[in-house]
Amino acid sequence: MGAIMTRMDDRSDSGLLARVEDGVATLTLNRPRQFNALSSAMLAALHSELDKLATDESVRVVVITGSGSAFCSGHDLKEMHGASPETVAALFASCSAMMQKLIALPQPVIAAVNGLATAAGCQLVAQCDLAIAADNARFAVSGINLGLFCSTPAVALTRNVSRKRAAEMLFTGEFIEAETALDWGLVNRVEPAALLMESVREYASTLKARPRASLASGKALFYRQLEAGMRAAYEEASRAIASDMGSAEAREGVDAFLGKRPPSWKA
Amino acid sequence: MGAIMTRMDDRSDSGLLARVEDGVATLTLNRPRQFNALSSAMLAALHSELDKLATDESVRVVVITGSGSAFCSGHDLKEMHGASPETVAALFASCSAMMQKLIALPQPVIAAVNGLATAAGCQLVAQCDLAIAADNARFAVSGINLGLFCSTPAVALTRNVSRKRAAEMLFTGEFIEAETALDWGLVNRVEPAALLMESVREYASTLKARPRASLASGKALFYRQLEAGMRAAYEEASRAIASDMGSAEAREGVDAFLGKRPPSWKA
Amino acid sequence: MGAIMTRMDDRSDSGLLARVEDGVATLTLNRPRQFNALSSAMLAALHSELDKLATDESVRVVVITGSGSAFCSGHDLKEMHGASPETVAALFASCSAMMQKLIALPQPVIAAVNGLATAAGCQLVAQCDLAIAADNARFAVSGINLGLFCSTPAVALTRNVSRKRAAEMLFTGEFIEAETALDWGLVNRVEPAALLMESVREYASTLKARPRASLASGKALFYRQLEAGMRAAYEEASRAIASDMGSAEAREGVDAFLGKRPPSWKA
Repeated sequence: MGAIMTRMDDRSDSGLLARVEDGVATLTLNRPRQFNALSSAMLAALHSELDKLATDESVRVVVITGSGSAFCSGHDLKEMHGASPETVAALFASCSAMMQKLIALPQPVIAAVNGLATAAGCQLVAQCDLAIAADNARFAVSGINLGLFCSTPAVALTRNVSRKRAAEMLFTGEFIEAETALDWGLVNRVEPAALLMESVREYASTLKARPRASLASGKALFYRQLEAGMRAAYEEASRAIASDMGSAEAREGVDAFLGKRPPSWKA
Repeated sequence: MGAIMTRMDDRSDSGLLARVEDGVATLTLNRPRQFNALSSAMLAALHSELDKLATDESVRVVVITGSGSAFCSGHDLKEMHGASPETVAALFASCSAMMQKLIALPQPVIAAVNGLATAAGCQLVAQCDLAIAADNARFAVSGINLGLFCSTPAVALTRNVSRKRAAEMLFTGEFIEAETALDWGLVNRVEPAALLMESVREYASTLKARPRASLASGKALFYRQLEAGMRAAYEEASRAIASDMGSAEAREGVDAFLGKRPPSWKA
Repeated sequence: MGAIMTRMDDRSDSGLLARVEDGVATLTLNRPRQFNALSSAMLAALHSELDKLATDESVRVVVITGSGSAFCSGHDLKEMHGASPETVAALFASCSAMMQKLIALPQPVIAAVNGLATAAGCQLVAQCDLAIAADNARFAVSGINLGLFCSTPAVALTRNVSRKRAAEMLFTGEFIEAETALDWGLVNRVEPAALLMESVREYASTLKARPRASLASGKALFYRQLEAGMRAAYEEASRAIASDMGSAEAREGVDAFLGKRPPSWKA
């Protein structure tokens, strides 16, 4: 199957490249000289792209990566420096809302961590559903080194790695290597840097072979039940799976399984 | 001490074997040709056995295992295929209730994972208090491959392994090996397949040497406090341990400890 | 910079040594013949010291360690034996309150685990923000062996290590080695026993190089957001980081960063 590019946006003003190819949307943070810092323009562009993706059924998987040596170095301190308290508050609120859009998206989101991921950049890795890192990627929530504890990154990080490990990263600001991130569960896989995007494409292909609607309702349930006590989680999950059992996807999937044939889904 | 078999039920209609020997109840999922799928008859038998065990003070440890090459392959799709939405909903609700009975039981429950554990079979491993796996056991929450996201398994799985690892298993449906399950905390031990049940027996003996009532109140507290915030958890746990301190078991245990003699408990 | 000792209390009646040197407070459990058991006098001394430290801005890091072969063996059973139910209840409540003071402290708290850590001693390790263990340290929540399930230790332990691992430790009472504690996330580092305190000092120096106020507000946020759902956690964290951005520490830190010079903080 040849590559079908359906859309390509070069928001060179914002520093975000958005590309959709073969059902995989790739958002590339493209301010390499600023180590892909999340300026307000970049955040606005991310909001806008994520809003579009949320309703685009042709997009099956979302990949977030960076260009150059960094994945993302967090907020743009130069821009923030001297901004009014109101502007600063709005920026952090916008960033937190963007992070939460990642888990509200119907598609699985993979962080393709091509390099340095610090502060809100490390948060972005933690907040994606899945993450694949280049073996030379490094991770830190280093705000404390600037007198600015990484409070918002802490929300995502502490929901990914265990308490003392998160505390060490947040209190010292020190880096961990890709292999440590893998060991601690912050990323799912580590690949040689040169093979990162190839590995991400394969991973995306695996996800694309699963039916869209099942992944979408499953992902929503995944995060919803995590916030509930066990009894409430089971009530919600039982309702969800019973309802999914009547879906076109499950009817075809179970039919195919019992008929010992591969399933055939529209998407 | 010779083996004392107190009860043995062959519910061959349901596919569940229940055996009590030396204070250890073993529930064997015994539909090997169906990879021990959880039919409605099997679920009903599990409910019935668990209800009996809950009030049987002679039973000190519960083991759940499977016969043949699988531990448990999840729900019985053949039976479910074509069932009414009401029947399907009742089945999932029954299964979720059965899973929650495992943590409500006063005895520790060990999954002895003799082989394949998929979908609700993987959930069963996750929901048991403890798990020992054969080195050839494999684990997946593979419903997504049939267009049926493993929503109820997600409840147990996400409370056992970290977020990105659970997401990967649920979104891709792919298998993990026993060693990975050990590394991720889904199982406590991995043993050569031929030694699995011997290892489980030793583990059960260790648990049986602890006083029954202390384990029962401790297990209940363990799960109760997990659902609470830290302050409420400490309040509950402080009350529990202070009350336990006045129990016959603790009085004897502390007496024995201070008297430098082994404790002697009735059970 | 030479060592400046600002205070040294030898509460030999309580078994607690408190020393402040170079901005690092070290609390040494000093009842080596009782394996540093937490007597009521020791608990009272800990409360008193922690209350003092909470308002002492000259103290930047708190270290808790033990003298002799044990870190801490938990409660003093000899003292508790024969005490009235009211006394026992008060003791456990006091201990739970002391544990919660560790996370309420504005300074980071490091457990320097010099040896055996059992029952409430293992809880103490789990409850500290960070932990460094000697390679010969061992960990158990062994109350079950005395007929007294470690309910209060369970609160801290289950918030540090995954569910089945915590269940195994609590249900069997068996020991884990330092390397396992590291692998499971119960401690941050393992060092040769002879180098433990040197490593702790280096770690404390790293923490001391970060600005006091930023660590204090960050630590408070860290634990607060852990108890909240993700949306509420992000709201709280966004407010916290936006507010911190206006602090003297962040203004200096960001200025220094943009000016490519090292930051200069008062503390």
